[in-house]
Amino acid sequence: MEGRINLDPFFYPNSVAVFGSFKPGAIAYEILRNVMEGGFEGKLIPVNPKGGNVEVAGRRFEIRKKLDEPVDTAIIAVPARIVPALIDGIGHLIKGAVVISAGFSEVGNEELERELVEKARKHGVRVIGPNCAGVFGVHGKFFGSFEVRVKPGGLTLVSQSGAFGGAALAMGNDEGIGFSAFVSYGNAADLNESDFLEYFADDPNTRAIALYIEGVKNGRRFLKALRYATSKKPVIILKAGKSASGARAAASHTGSLAGSYEIYRAAFKQTGAIEVEEMEELFDAAKAFEMYEKAGKRVAVITNSGGPGVLATDKLERLGLGIANLSEETVETLNSFLPPQCSVRNPVDLIADADYERYKRTIETVCRDENVDSILVICVPPIFIPSGEIAKAVIEADCSKPVVVNFMAGELVRGGVRILEENGIKNFTTPERAAKALRWLSQR
Amino acid sequence: MEGRINLDPFFYPNSVAVFGSFKPGAIAYEILRNVMEGGFEGKLIPVNPKGGNVEVAGRRFEIRKKLDEPVDTAIIAVPARIVPALIDGIGHLIKGAVVISAGFSEVGNEELERELVEKARKHGVRVIGPNCAGVFGVHGKFFGSFEVRVKPGGLTLVSQSGAFGGAALAMGNDEGIGFSAFVSYGNAADLNESDFLEYFADDPNTRAIALYIEGVKNGRRFLKALRYATSKKPVIILKAGKSASGARAAASHTGSLAGSYEIYRAAFKQTGAIEVEEMEELFDAAKAFEMYEKAGKRVAVITNSGGPGVLATDKLERLGLGIANLSEETVETLNSFLPPQCSVRNPVDLIADADYERYKRTIETVCRDENVDSILVICVPPIFIPSGEIAKAVIEADCSKPVVVNFMAGELVRGGVRILEENGIKNFTTPERAAKALRWLSQR
Repeated sequence: MEGRINLDPFFYPNSVAVFGSFKPGAIAYEILRNVMEGGFEGKLIPVNPKGGNVEVAGRRFEIRKKLDEPVDTAIIAVPARIVPALIDGIGHLIKGAVVISAGFSEVGNEELERELVEKARKHGVRVIGPNCAGVFGVHGKFFGSFEVRVKPGGLTLVSQSGAFGGAALAMGNDEGIGFSAFVSYGNAADLNESDFLEYFADDPNTRAIALYIEGVKNGRRFLKALRYATSKKPVIILKAGKSASGARAAASHTGSLAGSYEIYRAAFKQTGAIEVEEMEELFDAAKAFEMYEKAGKRVAVITNSGGPGVLATDKLERLGLGIANLSEETVETLNSFLPPQCSVRNPVDLIADADYERYKRTIETVCRDENVDSILVICVPPIFIPSGEIAKAVIEADCSKPVVVNFMAGELVRGGVRILEENGIKNFTTPERAAKALRWLSQR
Repeated sequence: MEGRINLDPFFYPNSVAVFGSFKPGAIAYEILRNVMEGGFEGKLIPVNPKGGNVEVAGRRFEIRKKLDEPVDTAIIAVPARIVPALIDGIGHLIKGAVVISAGFSEVGNEELERELVEKARKHGVRVIGPNCAGVFGVHGKFFGSFEVRVKPGGLTLVSQSGAFGGAALAMGNDEGIGFSAFVSYGNAADLNESDFLEYFADDPNTRAIALYIEGVKNGRRFLKALRYATSKKPVIILKAGKSASGARAAASHTGSLAGSYEIYRAAFKQTGAIEVEEMEELFDAAKAFEMYEKAGKRVAVITNSGGPGVLATDKLERLGLGIANLSEETVETLNSFLPPQCSVRNPVDLIADADYERYKRTIETVCRDENVDSILVICVPPIFIPSGEIAKAVIEADCSKPVVVNFMAGELVRGGVRILEENGIKNFTTPERAAKALRWLSQR
């Protein structure tokens, strides 16, 4: 769409300059190291007026005393007070600036922040930050932040809070999430949440957008951007500052007025955004949407243990989903190959000695049932076979409907979970978290 | 109290016989191996009419053809149909029998189960099971089950479902939970949930009891046992079969009538039991009660990052806890040593460069405030110091009020989390899960 800002220089840059101190441990050094270790293939230029050399990730850089050639993006981690002059000096050479430096409006220096924006506008430079943790463009192998690197995938994380973003990236790694991009936008002096929503709505590598916000700058603009983004892909939102005390805390944190939560809530609902209440739910929703676009409400549960099947059923019903009524034909087919001790009602209990074949055939049979929209597969540690066999059954089963998986628990199923993840299937660690994943899929 | 059953032979046995097949992979073999590897120091006797030898954990056993000396407990994993005769044959030599074997009432063989109980009663033998996963008495290093071994601690897990129990033990290991005992009681032909509640209420190694149930055998008895147990220590309950479909699934799983959930709910409330809704919450509550007996509702939040502090605040308020109003004196003291960019309101934001000293002094100052009942400490990965430093601050701070900790996330704080755990402090992986922990503590 016309008028939309092209943020490729930030997320798919061909050339990057980093400004700051390159002593090990310093922010600019850590960012340079992260960009190098992440395998960035474009031009990379460290800049510091003192010059000298720096070695990172086995490569020795000469530190330039000034930038003297055009680059897509400058990452700036110099003292706040010299940022406006720096941007004025290099503005003709850059398209975008990521200002990591803190010490602007978040500590009352509104004037300095205004100056920064003014110098950038003068040169047509777009700015992310200041007071931010930087950006990742994962599919372009560009890790322009000191935060922990992540695996490539479909989730873009847009976070007002840098620290939240960093923690979420690290947790995302543990949860098996793949990322397409990350941006921590800090004070949002120039570019803000709405710009990122619009840009990533059209980014082909992004399957879902996760947004952490405390408050927004411009409500009407946000609503428009959110509506556009949700028309293209799922937008998962964690809104902080919902309670009275939380809103007060948010105000003192980002200076942003959190505003009435009820207004936000109505906006999320109206636009079809997926609102989650907890950090962990953000991951569960993200995992679900990395795999599937959506799912219907009639769920079939397949398990090798009764108890967890009951827990999943309880949660599904509580979340407003339905336990699918299996057709006569499905029940007959299941009866034809399952041992008599199994339960062929939904949840289908394959009992403890269920193996590859039993899982695979059951998934395929249930998947063909017109009354079934999606499948929740539960596997507690099988005693006589490795969990990897069950993982293979899930992967190799011929089924085109969404299948959400709960292998539990811990070390006993790690082998199976690894095989699942290698094949793009995310694991949910409890029956209830798997049920929640299906709930969010049903909201699209 | 008089009339209460002494279950020490099951959970603190001096001598154990295992009956079944000792081929690697067979249930009896796996149990023998687990008992040996777990370091059991009592007498251990494998029994199988075929005799022979078996080597486990570096020790070679002669398999006895029959049991010919008294032992505290027999663990039985032989075919169901020969169990009653076996118990009749060894009843004079044993105090308790753990019957792992399946194939009794859960598949319609009520008659065989009655016979089992009758033979046991004849000899005054108490029975756990049949159709169960066995028992652990962790402080006596007795791992009488094929389930994964666990670290010693304060939680006793009583589970109607064996598979749920096994999965929960494995997840408990991941969550850093320490266990005092575990029992999977299966069909509850003799001993049931009420017996275990009463026994563990008086067990000095058990600080909290976690109970997974689908249904109970005798409602009145259960209510009495639950009331007694909750008078002694926290009882955390996860009730499965709450929804209509869940109750149906439970009926086909354990054959137990799940009954109206409303009645259970009222009973839990009346007795002061802590009811949780999800498996994960069971762990969070267990972790909280392994550390503390209870906590008041006025919470102080201390963080090095605004965003997670806001999320914690939102959740605390939503759960009905309060954000403590710090006294004038506390605010003054904090202002005297904290940098001006920090926020001394609750949540107290120590900002990104907070170190050992800043955390320690803040915890101690806030802890002295009479308006504060408990403290939630949040730490996102500190950039310039290892997370272990913050962990030490938490451990070494002079504070006698409950402190609940949320270090996040992932690999970045693993060092700090390890140090916390070595010092008996459990970590909660998100601000919201830490908030929930405080909520359960406030319900005692």
